[in-house]
Amino acid sequence: MASIDDLDTPAILIDAARAEANIAKAQAHADRHGLKLRPHIKTHKLPYWAKKQVAAGAVGITCQKIGEAEVMADAGLEDIFLPYNILGRAKLERLKALHGRVALSVTADSHETLSGLAATFTDTGHPLPVLVECDTGMGRCGVQSPAEAVALAKVIRAAEAEAWLRNARETLAAAGLECRRISSGGTPDMWRSGEDSVVTEYRPGTYIYLDRYQVAKGVGTLDDCALTVLATVVSHPTPSRAILDSGSKALSSDTLGLPDFGELLGVPSARVTGLSEEHGNVTLSDGGALRIGERVRVVPDHCCVVTNLFDQVHLIDGDKVLETLPVAARGKMA
Amino acid sequence: MASIDDLDTPAILIDAARAEANIAKAQAHADRHGLKLRPHIKTHKLPYWAKKQVAAGAVGITCQKIGEAEVMADAGLEDIFLPYNILGRAKLERLKALHGRVALSVTADSHETLSGLAATFTDTGHPLPVLVECDTGMGRCGVQSPAEAVALAKVIRAAEAEAWLRNARETLAAAGLECRRISSGGTPDMWRSGEDSVVTEYRPGTYIYLDRYQVAKGVGTLDDCALTVLATVVSHPTPSRAILDSGSKALSSDTLGLPDFGELLGVPSARVTGLSEEHGNVTLSDGGALRIGERVRVVPDHCCVVTNLFDQVHLIDGDKVLETLPVAARGKMA
Repeated sequence: MASIDDLDTPAILIDAARAEANIAKAQAHADRHGLKLRPHIKTHKLPYWAKKQVAAGAVGITCQKIGEAEVMADAGLEDIFLPYNILGRAKLERLKALHGRVALSVTADSHETLSGLAATFTDTGHPLPVLVECDTGMGRCGVQSPAEAVALAKVIRAAEAEAWLRNARETLAAAGLECRRISSGGTPDMWRSGEDSVVTEYRPGTYIYLDRYQVAKGVGTLDDCALTVLATVVSHPTPSRAILDSGSKALSSDTLGLPDFGELLGVPSARVTGLSEEHGNVTLSDGGALRIGERVRVVPDHCCVVTNLFDQVHLIDGDKVLETLPVAARGKMA
Repeated sequence: MASIDDLDTPAILIDAARAEANIAKAQAHADRHGLKLRPHIKTHKLPYWAKKQVAAGAVGITCQKIGEAEVMADAGLEDIFLPYNILGRAKLERLKALHGRVALSVTADSHETLSGLAATFTDTGHPLPVLVECDTGMGRCGVQSPAEAVALAKVIRAAEAEAWLRNARETLAAAGLECRRISSGGTPDMWRSGEDSVVTEYRPGTYIYLDRYQVAKGVGTLDDCALTVLATVVSHPTPSRAILDSGSKALSSDTLGLPDFGELLGVPSARVTGLSEEHGNVTLSDGGALRIGERVRVVPDHCCVVTNLFDQVHLIDGDKVLETLPVAARGKMA
């Protein structure tokens, strides 16, 4: 069996046992609270993990792009939710073809999106489930009362999403519309949901690998993080500065607002303080030191965007490489 | 001939005539000042443009990863500079193979890097040129007097790089070491260099496409930018907020310190104020409006990281698609 010492850097390592444990833990939480789990594949982009998530009890998976859903359908995944406004002939045609192969559902937040869907999915015997996308505070897509929009965007926070959706469900009920499926995303939110949640299914992505942002949010510790980037120290120009061969092309510039660009494991005095495309700047304090040629592992701030940068990931057990997998759904732009 | 209206979004569009003009303009500047041009392919990652840059008069090309250099060598490029500390058996073996095929040169800033190179390149009849990497203020890799390191990193700015290198050349000369090749990077710097520069060759990358950062630095205008990302408005939840189908997976989170994540062309009241992976948030003011389903074009802040996110780019002339090229050197991690 190969060792991680045989891998060239930078490389993505996935601690397989940690990822399996993260899957089991989330499914147990969902089961305990009567929630359906519909994991978002954006984090791993791998049929390998999607199948394991479903085998563990997930009702299906979530994709963001049709190209991702096509990869997953090809791999045998059967129930796919695409919470996105699908617009334009090219995408609608692909969506229709996909609808013929798997149990598919999408979202819409506008008449324009709905009219495109309605014109495409005309077979009343095989309708396409469309969920209404709600903006419960993220300030991205989603319906909202236009008059309240600006005020809402400022005051609604994650904790208030529950009340927003409960209000919406009651308003729908008063109009005689039953709401059978309320789907919500976000790994941190899932752990806050209890048995009395108005949400019927969650679409967490990051929970499988975790990252520095999730740790900062209190979702597990660095020891729960399954994904690390293996890097090599290529320069040490000053006592307080070392350079890794992993820059923004490997760790991504997306810090999700955290200070630093990742957590360098095993060297407490080291901070990843800057990135350019192929260089990661490490600031060392308190006499900490790295060696040129030394290999280190970095927990990135946001693991989803990191898997989108690599063509392959290595599943590991300690120092052993169990398997190397192509990131099948990487780079799907549409 | 296909039209850009036939392309699905998001997609990268390259205005071919603008890119050609940018190549010609930089080469003319270099020729006028007796500078050698060695363009950095990180911006386009395409043999197509690398060959045109050499045909225009460049002495060779610059790559940052061996994998990029291998792609370019396969495509017939013959003179490749790899300004990076190459460490480790796997990379050194690939470097040696490459050295057998093309005129190759690299950099080093440490004894560790040099000893690895020396142990690998033992044929004195076919030596590998190694340039000394100097830190003239960027605070990344590069030699520097250790005692002066901290103070230098704070005070040296781009404008002082020239003096730093002149001093280094004189110090080398005093020690009896002639310095025949001084290579420097950075598109903005190139335009500041004149006939009296101590630098003998420049390795600009971004000059071929330009981007919002280069425009902010005064290197051309938005009309000189050859690369745009074609995007679709997928949601318009409030009068002041529209959402594009292009998020950080298309535009990248790397703003190079600029406000906003790109320039939305043709809608002066629109600002790209936020990105998540698959959503670009546009803030509209002064009654500006977009239509759901409308297609827009965005000049990204940093075009090099954008080309690394797409598997292909479309060369355009106005609204016509001239050619679609795979981004051959994309995602080369090592």
